[in-house]
Amino acid sequence: MSHDIRIVTEAELRRVVTLDLAIVDEIEAAFRALAGGTVVMPPILSMALEEAHGEVDVKTAYIPGLDGFAIKVSPGFFDNPKLGLTSLNGLMILFSAKTGLVECVFLDNGYLTDLRTAAAGAVAARWLAPETVTTAGVIGTGVQARLQIEAARLVRPFERVLVWGRDLEKAAACASDIAEATGVEAELCTDRETLVARSQLVVTTTPSRTPLIEPGWLHPELHITAMGSDQEGKCELAPGCLSAADLYVADRVSQCAALGELRAALDGRIAPEAPVELGQIIAGAPGRRSPADTTICDLTGTGAQDTAIASFVAGRLGDTGTVVRT
Amino acid sequence: MSHDIRIVTEAELRRVVTLDLAIVDEIEAAFRALAGGTVVMPPILSMALEEAHGEVDVKTAYIPGLDGFAIKVSPGFFDNPKLGLTSLNGLMILFSAKTGLVECVFLDNGYLTDLRTAAAGAVAARWLAPETVTTAGVIGTGVQARLQIEAARLVRPFERVLVWGRDLEKAAACASDIAEATGVEAELCTDRETLVARSQLVVTTTPSRTPLIEPGWLHPELHITAMGSDQEGKCELAPGCLSAADLYVADRVSQCAALGELRAALDGRIAPEAPVELGQIIAGAPGRRSPADTTICDLTGTGAQDTAIASFVAGRLGDTGTVVRT
Repeated sequence: MSHDIRIVTEAELRRVVTLDLAIVDEIEAAFRALAGGTVVMPPILSMALEEAHGEVDVKTAYIPGLDGFAIKVSPGFFDNPKLGLTSLNGLMILFSAKTGLVECVFLDNGYLTDLRTAAAGAVAARWLAPETVTTAGVIGTGVQARLQIEAARLVRPFERVLVWGRDLEKAAACASDIAEATGVEAELCTDRETLVARSQLVVTTTPSRTPLIEPGWLHPELHITAMGSDQEGKCELAPGCLSAADLYVADRVSQCAALGELRAALDGRIAPEAPVELGQIIAGAPGRRSPADTTICDLTGTGAQDTAIASFVAGRLGDTGTVVRT
Repeated sequence: MSHDIRIVTEAELRRVVTLDLAIVDEIEAAFRALAGGTVVMPPILSMALEEAHGEVDVKTAYIPGLDGFAIKVSPGFFDNPKLGLTSLNGLMILFSAKTGLVECVFLDNGYLTDLRTAAAGAVAARWLAPETVTTAGVIGTGVQARLQIEAARLVRPFERVLVWGRDLEKAAACASDIAEATGVEAELCTDRETLVARSQLVVTTTPSRTPLIEPGWLHPELHITAMGSDQEGKCELAPGCLSAADLYVADRVSQCAALGELRAALDGRIAPEAPVELGQIIAGAPGRRSPADTTICDLTGTGAQDTAIASFVAGRLGDTGTVVRT
């Protein structure tokens, strides 16, 4: 039985879908579903290719009510920049949840992952950040530094952005890009402690393996989203931050315990007891209790987000892409 | 950085590659590599979609020395036949093992899986079956019943085939197809015990959840390859068969213990001690010690086979397929 499969390239996807509130809402719905207990989300398949300084992760989830489920493959090959290639690439495949047939192949080179990751940051900010954010700080200078700020601004219309990066030139370029994309004042901040002190919302977006934020820097009226850690060994927050905050929230506790900020806190036996998941807060669990609270959200990235964004994009495709009959 | 990706459909793949000794050799090399300890092969990612009576498995492996690695997605949706669709489908993606970039997308609907699975049966027969096989028996009547016999005949030129199936009509059709494809005499056998008694090589190819072969049926000068079980709960051999045989061989012990014939034997505490892997035998571990031995090989299917067949096919493509730039 032959059937049609739609192949869509990164350039085509960029024409069809950009970061907006509709995506944020879609990703929020995925988190809410995840908290409902009916989503099937197996552990991440992960393979290291040490010789090539590479790794590949595969994520998936089935969300009842959606017509399809995605399988997302994310290779990261960290010597690629020497070859003029980006480190992160990959594709997403959308399958029918009724027949298992391949419906779409999104040759997105990680673009949809970028969008759904930034959207998760906006969901975290929407539910956890203080109502009033005048200054947002971002640690890191890559694609996610830019996108996380763009996404957060959809839900908290701050007027100033501070950017910290190890490389001052990259941090200045990132600030300039953010100013251009969002129209807000954005500037380099050479000291992380100052950045945290001046911000009500901080997003960490690095692959760091040593903490970048110390517990003593936490202050009232602050939310931190740590989205960089997605592997054993990575860590952006000193483990003490998690219990120093009034509330620690995981995207998925089992993943954060293995790959996120929670891991080091568990190792050090200073982890918050019974951490709550972002989806549970969306579904009604207690979140921020007062404007003065300090909150932390730990994002490792879930297959549910991949299925949500792939389904969303499929609905917007029209006749974009190339149809192959197989 | 845009790059080219080759999209190849099932029909195109069928024109480029069919079951032959070259594939058997390639799969044998993958098993040998797997025994060498340098292959990286993570556990299978598996997701059940109970509402849809479906499941999806993802397999992968990195084999040092090959330029690429495959990620294979196999959905099985068992209500599909009611819709006129096949239950098993899926695709394989070949990535560069140096950069992680997608090189080929094989929209094969499971065709390459069929080939690499049959080829593994031939590897098992080559290394484990008695030198002289005059009669081969096959239990099951699906695609693999046909392909396993075709593949085994590449390494053991038997002259007679016996086919057993629950559905007599399907078994007769399968025997007729085998006779046509291989030129050997092939006939229906309505009794499994008789089939085993008359054969020197038996291949079981069913999704059975109850044993189809009893320990008392084992006899000298016999090799059995059980390739149907690939999930918890499936089982083609009564667990006592494994210790009743002179030699039990797994494709991958960790997988067979969870998904293969070994699982029930372990549950019943009658498993063979320290089972050996097929790759270890290829690499020199003791296998069949005399023509009179009774041997069993348990095949659950490995990501190493997927990487091997995808790499092999890529080398044969020429300008087959459609190139998409992304």
